Amino acid sequence: MAHRMAIGVDFGATNLKVALVDSKGTVESKRECPTAASRGPDAVIADLARLAESSRGDAPDGTDLVGVGVGAPGPISHRMGMIVRSNNLPGWSNVRLRDRLQDKLGLRVTLDNDGNVAAFGEYWVGAGEQTGDLVMLTLGTGVGGGVVLNEAILHGHFENAAELGHMIVSLDGLQCSCGQRGCLEQYASASAVARRVNEAIQQGESKVLSDAVSSGQVIDAEWVVRYAREGNAVCLRIWNEACFYLAAACINIQRFYNPARIVFGGGMSRAGGFLLDSIREHLGRQKSSTDSNLPEITLAKLGHEAGVIGAAHLALKELAGDE
Amino acid sequence: MAHRMAIGVDFGATNLKVALVDSKGTVESKRECPTAASRGPDAVIADLARLAESSRGDAPDGTDLVGVGVGAPGPISHRMGMIVRSNNLPGWSNVRLRDRLQDKLGLRVTLDNDGNVAAFGEYWVGAGEQTGDLVMLTLGTGVGGGVVLNEAILHGHFENAAELGHMIVSLDGLQCSCGQRGCLEQYASASAVARRVNEAIQQGESKVLSDAVSSGQVIDAEWVVRYAREGNAVCLRIWNEACFYLAAACINIQRFYNPARIVFGGGMSRAGGFLLDSIREHLGRQKSSTDSNLPEITLAKLGHEAGVIGAAHLALKELAGDE
Repeated sequence: MAHRMAIGVDFGATNLKVALVDSKGTVESKRECPTAASRGPDAVIADLARLAESSRGDAPDGTDLVGVGVGAPGPISHRMGMIVRSNNLPGWSNVRLRDRLQDKLGLRVTLDNDGNVAAFGEYWVGAGEQTGDLVMLTLGTGVGGGVVLNEAILHGHFENAAELGHMIVSLDGLQCSCGQRGCLEQYASASAVARRVNEAIQQGESKVLSDAVSSGQVIDAEWVVRYAREGNAVCLRIWNEACFYLAAACINIQRFYNPARIVFGGGMSRAGGFLLDSIREHLGRQKSSTDSNLPEITLAKLGHEAGVIGAAHLALKELAGDE
Repeated sequence: MAHRMAIGVDFGATNLKVALVDSKGTVESKRECPTAASRGPDAVIADLARLAESSRGDAPDGTDLVGVGVGAPGPISHRMGMIVRSNNLPGWSNVRLRDRLQDKLGLRVTLDNDGNVAAFGEYWVGAGEQTGDLVMLTLGTGVGGGVVLNEAILHGHFENAAELGHMIVSLDGLQCSCGQRGCLEQYASASAVARRVNEAIQQGESKVLSDAVSSGQVIDAEWVVRYAREGNAVCLRIWNEACFYLAAACINIQRFYNPARIVFGGGMSRAGGFLLDSIREHLGRQKSSTDSNLPEITLAKLGHEAGVIGAAHLALKELAGDE
């Protein structure tokens, strides 16, 4: 019997990643290039097609290649195979990526939101083991959300469900670029943590940190975690606040979706137990005393490959009807 | 062809309501009695069976009676047909209501959470017209939630989804009986509004209101609305705060589920446009400036009958496979 495979595409603002993935979720080969989105859709789509074509060449003879799954930054329309617009990709407005890739490749293509696709990958062969109800938060530049219920991605009526980075956790709180105030991602993304520490340094709250930055060190979430672990009060406070808000987000996720598992991925999740322990501690204080069936709080397992693997699973499921 | 019907049961903490409902959602007959829950499960189940038996007798000859749907206060298990426990019904812990009613009646029975069932009724023949994606908030003693996605009730992995009254809208806010702080229902239920006005009166904030209460008037949400409409500052402020939190809840509902419609029912919704206008005003200030596909905010249409109609629809759909 022919070995069934799909090509998974992770269309990020920084890099394009394309992988050949088999029906068990194993990455057979992987290719990558910078997105350089400022070149506009034509050049980027040409690169995507080129990488996908090369991945196709990696497939052994007799492979049953079902098609291509693409995860792209939202808002996208899964039904129409279209990127509706993008804050990070200039010129990407109403681009029919699905059809354009299909025409170039002669392969069937399916498109979904990057947060959804990452959650779908984790559900399939990552942290989702043995559950069909999982919510994933990707703590990176923003906070991406993806929701799998009854083994299917939740899209919503207008295909904009699971925008969990923009749940309001602090009414009249920090201004978000989306126009709302107090969105989760203003407190608990990797970028937000770095930004807030930087602001504290600017306000002269820590001489140690200020000196470190003057010596050329770059502030990112990993840097904040390093100083927090060493006991730096400013880094600890801001990290702790992020986890406080993430715990509140977990409670709301439980109340809305009641999933079996909440999975944390993205840059901030590289802090591992340092992240989970703090979230769990805040959860212990905030959660209901009577509720027994709380979701398990875990780390993502697929790292940078969640996107390509999830996208390939989407293709296998939607284009070939695999379970 | 036989006329298909179902019996819908609304098992409330105060009253038991039982109706015979046809396959178009028309209530053919309705019966009601006090719950008097302190009598314990045996007596209440006997009353439920008696009312259902009478409703069955109302069905014209040749009716195809598919069975009984029951909406009951949660947490319940739909899969097991069981009331797990209830804060308002003493002695109701792990009661297998479905099987016990089935045995008494010789009819098939299905059980679901009261918030879910009300949402299912509104979706079917009420405010849900022409959409399969609807979220309902019932603003009564508490804030009940029900979510219909893709024409089906959302249950969640542990059957506790859509507990929207317990989303956190104010971190470290008012203590809720569930053990959390800052739950929506501490600010925006009919009872919460009345309670908060009463507290303000106790603190001497309004002589007019204090005199009204001394003269024997009872504070409930309707009373608060009446004084708010007349321009009373205390009532206006607390009503306004409730609507402020409800607007935040609408945004979170949009971000999580992205439904076509959010429907308000329960005691507070009798304020009609006075409620909707205020929520919409707060929404205008809080919502994202870029998001175009916002759910429509509307009032429930079925009033006190949402429960029995939704329960009957559940029976028609689950026991007879109607669409």
